[in-house]
Amino acid sequence: MTSHVVYVVGHKKPDTDSICSAIVFAYLWNKWKETGKMSDVMKIDVEAVPARQGDINPETEFVLKKFGFEPPELITDAEGKKVILVDHSEKPQTLDNIDKAEVLAIIDHHKIGDVTTPNPIMFINLPVGCTATVLKLLFDYTGIEIPKEMAGLMLSSILSDTVIFKSATTTELDKKVAEDLAKIAGIEDITKFGIELKSKLSAIEELSAREIITRDFKDYDMSGKKVGVGQIELVDLSLIESRKDEIYEEMKKLKDEKGYDGIFLMLTDIMKEGTELLVVTDYPQVVEIAFGKKLEEKSVWLDKVMSRKKQVVPPLEKAFAQV
Amino acid sequence: MTSHVVYVVGHKKPDTDSICSAIVFAYLWNKWKETGKMSDVMKIDVEAVPARQGDINPETEFVLKKFGFEPPELITDAEGKKVILVDHSEKPQTLDNIDKAEVLAIIDHHKIGDVTTPNPIMFINLPVGCTATVLKLLFDYTGIEIPKEMAGLMLSSILSDTVIFKSATTTELDKKVAEDLAKIAGIEDITKFGIELKSKLSAIEELSAREIITRDFKDYDMSGKKVGVGQIELVDLSLIESRKDEIYEEMKKLKDEKGYDGIFLMLTDIMKEGTELLVVTDYPQVVEIAFGKKLEEKSVWLDKVMSRKKQVVPPLEKAFAQV
Repeated sequence: MTSHVVYVVGHKKPDTDSICSAIVFAYLWNKWKETGKMSDVMKIDVEAVPARQGDINPETEFVLKKFGFEPPELITDAEGKKVILVDHSEKPQTLDNIDKAEVLAIIDHHKIGDVTTPNPIMFINLPVGCTATVLKLLFDYTGIEIPKEMAGLMLSSILSDTVIFKSATTTELDKKVAEDLAKIAGIEDITKFGIELKSKLSAIEELSAREIITRDFKDYDMSGKKVGVGQIELVDLSLIESRKDEIYEEMKKLKDEKGYDGIFLMLTDIMKEGTELLVVTDYPQVVEIAFGKKLEEKSVWLDKVMSRKKQVVPPLEKAFAQV
Repeated sequence: MTSHVVYVVGHKKPDTDSICSAIVFAYLWNKWKETGKMSDVMKIDVEAVPARQGDINPETEFVLKKFGFEPPELITDAEGKKVILVDHSEKPQTLDNIDKAEVLAIIDHHKIGDVTTPNPIMFINLPVGCTATVLKLLFDYTGIEIPKEMAGLMLSSILSDTVIFKSATTTELDKKVAEDLAKIAGIEDITKFGIELKSKLSAIEELSAREIITRDFKDYDMSGKKVGVGQIELVDLSLIESRKDEIYEEMKKLKDEKGYDGIFLMLTDIMKEGTELLVVTDYPQVVEIAFGKKLEEKSVWLDKVMSRKKQVVPPLEKAFAQV
């Protein structure tokens, strides 16, 4: 059974691009097989099946439902399988036992990872905002028509990965491709659709305060201090306004419980492109040292700050080194 | 100085594709920089300079002279440099200190190697016969006109790497691209040009018998026996006919001198697609075990055998295991 198909799979903890690009590239691969449109480059004699490495998030669930797809098959181990990797090329992000699999192709838009192959394969990586952008070029290059629902999946991937063209990774190509795809998919207002899509990950009504803090939370050792930084991305901060006090009290509880020297929660407004940073710490002066702005009671507004890794953790590390 | 340019470099022990693809991709990159034709994908703000990791072979020398180029700059260390890799993606084949360089792009047609990057880059690898075939697609995709002499370099690379379309790695795309390039380069008879080009590596008049044996020679331990297998590729075996006795005597000398249990020299006829295997060994029966044909005095003709790695070493290893 296994050897008769090739599984197309995105990275662990799949996002919308990893799921949709697996579905779309499996479709394109099978069209290549059927039409021979890639036969001058390589022999395609195995049927592609989309797969995923983990649970679907609420945003992806919305996208799949909207365009009429079921979540792809769940797989975790590559041993003895033929696989195609989309949206990643790193071993820590891929299936277990990748070295015991046959990798037939890689399509990605990230840094170049450590997956190697014993034979030449198709590996196409472009420094653009989304894997689906690369897939669109491959449809066009090989003259395969893009069905409406495949265009919808690709457009959703681009809007998700580029945070509606606001992330620093966005290129002109992503925008151009998204416009083409929106026409095919019959989506008239791209931004409106993007907000609708991104708002699915903003759905916090059903989460407890503790879950809001810890859903995307990382621990750091900053000059001997135990620091935690969480982030939640929202299409509009008013969505969380009424629960801010409750969340703040929960942050204090968490701090005492786990012995943190500071807990920082980024409430990131993806449309306004900035972050309200909620702060509970024994060293409130770090905020001014790090960001040049004083803490106003519980929080501080940081304009243009959207990245924990690039814009919040490094200045905090410098500040904690001084207190 | 260094940071203002990016070096485009092929693999160690450069062949024609590694040299020519470095020259051609440096040209294409600079055109992208000048015209902005790749600016929707990535920012190009550094001038490309072709480079090489080692001496030019006689075939490449002929090609560069024919189309009016000098050998590119010799570099061996990547530390502190910006580099683009063509025709390889493996650390053992690349510059020293590649981890201390900034890799801006990789264009290749081999198995996927172990070079990784900290940031997203353009990495395009196709399972075709030659890097230049991939480059031709990139010219076309970005609408950059191919000058006559660049077409000549790319055509030469394809003819060299695919052994005039006879190697098992040749694809329909290589043939199609080579035809396009021949038209641009004004080469009317592709096969004739291919033979002229490949014959440059067949130039053995100036080599001693010992040099003919050892120019491309590898040692193997085969079930405890010391075995050496050399190969020389010729467009016509008659080129070496008059020197066969001299070479055979030299093989005997080499065997005694270095204590070999067997020396095998592949005289490969790339047009006839077969190999005359010259043999000096204490175990002549291995030839029949390995190839199903008896040794005729000094040698045996092996039809369709052209690859040492795939067609000669494995059967010899099995045969030596039985004697």
